[in-house]
Amino acid sequence: PLRGSLPLLPVNAQIERESAREVRELENNPNFNAGRGSVLTSNGTVEMEACIMDGNTKKCGAVSGVTTVVNAISLARLVMEKTPHIYLGFDGAEAFAREQGVETIETSHFITPENVDRLKQAKEANRVQIDYTPPFQKEVKEETDIPGGDSQIGTVGCVAVDCHGNLATATSTGGLVNKMVGRIGDTPIIGAGTYANSFCAVSATGKGESIIRATVTRDVAALMEYKGLSLKDAAAYTIEECTPRGTAGLIAVSATGEVTMPFNTTGMFRACATEDGHTEVAIWPYA
Amino acid sequence: PLRGSLPLLPVNAQIERESAREVRELENNPNFNAGRGSVLTSNGTVEMEACIMDGNTKKCGAVSGVTTVVNAISLARLVMEKTPHIYLGFDGAEAFAREQGVETIETSHFITPENVDRLKQAKEANRVQIDYTPPFQKEVKEETDIPGGDSQIGTVGCVAVDCHGNLATATSTGGLVNKMVGRIGDTPIIGAGTYANSFCAVSATGKGESIIRATVTRDVAALMEYKGLSLKDAAAYTIEECTPRGTAGLIAVSATGEVTMPFNTTGMFRACATEDGHTEVAIWPYA
Repeated sequence: PLRGSLPLLPVNAQIERESAREVRELENNPNFNAGRGSVLTSNGTVEMEACIMDGNTKKCGAVSGVTTVVNAISLARLVMEKTPHIYLGFDGAEAFAREQGVETIETSHFITPENVDRLKQAKEANRVQIDYTPPFQKEVKEETDIPGGDSQIGTVGCVAVDCHGNLATATSTGGLVNKMVGRIGDTPIIGAGTYANSFCAVSATGKGESIIRATVTRDVAALMEYKGLSLKDAAAYTIEECTPRGTAGLIAVSATGEVTMPFNTTGMFRACATEDGHTEVAIWPYA
Repeated sequence: PLRGSLPLLPVNAQIERESAREVRELENNPNFNAGRGSVLTSNGTVEMEACIMDGNTKKCGAVSGVTTVVNAISLARLVMEKTPHIYLGFDGAEAFAREQGVETIETSHFITPENVDRLKQAKEANRVQIDYTPPFQKEVKEETDIPGGDSQIGTVGCVAVDCHGNLATATSTGGLVNKMVGRIGDTPIIGAGTYANSFCAVSATGKGESIIRATVTRDVAALMEYKGLSLKDAAAYTIEECTPRGTAGLIAVSATGEVTMPFNTTGMFRACATEDGHTEVAIWPYA
């Protein structure tokens, strides 16, 4: 699911740290495709990815190919804080995790029986699936150019703004069911699955390849910055005009606290909480 | 070096294939930081990255963490052509290379004595260097926020346009001297080091972290698409206003054949060839 939040943070609170905390909770929930509950590669293994970005400073951190780290988002945050780099992948990311002493666990911890079944079904159907696509849907078979097709998306993300207009975003995922070993998706790519600047914070979900091609999260911000669109119009344009139907959704928040959560998939788990206690949770499109 | 070219291609020629051919030549030249001649990680190993994108179809392919593939750009092109994915990294990319039967060689082939020296000097100076920075330059020590600082950049790239206005780009690199094992830079990131659409084709070089943060190549295209700037103005704005001094350069070509090659580093190897036989080669800024 994707979560937008407008927390009332104490002065000097780091909003990107709060975003990471939200995502960590979702990683630990085995019902979502991130951390424990990540979907499996074609080899039956887990390769997790995560990314975090602070809009104010444009500091960011990302990891891919993580196999034993309990919370990939925490490791992404450490890459941001403790290295001269933005992005570490695979064995190098795992070695860095050990060097930093983050919590690791046997990789079997992340693998749920549900995902073993999903991989089996995907292999039988011989396709690469987005997250939690129910296999053998009629609509999937009609979408010839989108392996895996439409779905309820399980990647987890959070966007947040504080009372000073500081923005941050964090995203974490297990990727696609039956993905090739080594496949890198949109989540860890700044400007594709994850982006924040002084205009907005954005986290995307869906078919990573479509999101990379359309630089979805950067385009939402660029349409505000370069074309003067509102957050809502920028996000709607990006989802409706720049990505194929059935491939993308996002959650975004602007510096003034506007929230939008458009998607062109069948449904998208999403939630929004504001400082005045208003909470909104949804999966399917609004009627 | 970065090469802009306006070849007179036969009808139905694939312009992205031509871009890959140019980059392959540069990868094979040990004087450049890509393929043979790639700079070394902190462990003394080579981890190469490459990316290709076709502007017309927005098809793209990328690889990271390649250690034995003679031409990483060819592997990136195969990821684009033969998989449902865009981007493969590390062991998965190497396994795919073997499955596809591309030319591989012992990793020692890529390591030159010059790069062994560069790593030694970087370790003595305890810093991460961009490509071919001469170590211990006075100007480097003055740049507190840019590890490695200014340099002549060795990443190789090509942008191309054909007589129909079809655009393509290809980039290949060994990354930064003394980079952490597993570090992913801007080159394989669509919208950071490499991007093409129907407006322009762009390939960037420099300190990858700055280029990722500023989504340099997508921003050049977005400024044309969303703000109506010319290629030259879009590229100048991106290099001058969006990236710190001493960290970035790019080469770009528009659908109408306009070429621009701005940089905010000390120098940038660059060349341009047009179909009428005009050739231009330069390293330092124009007087």
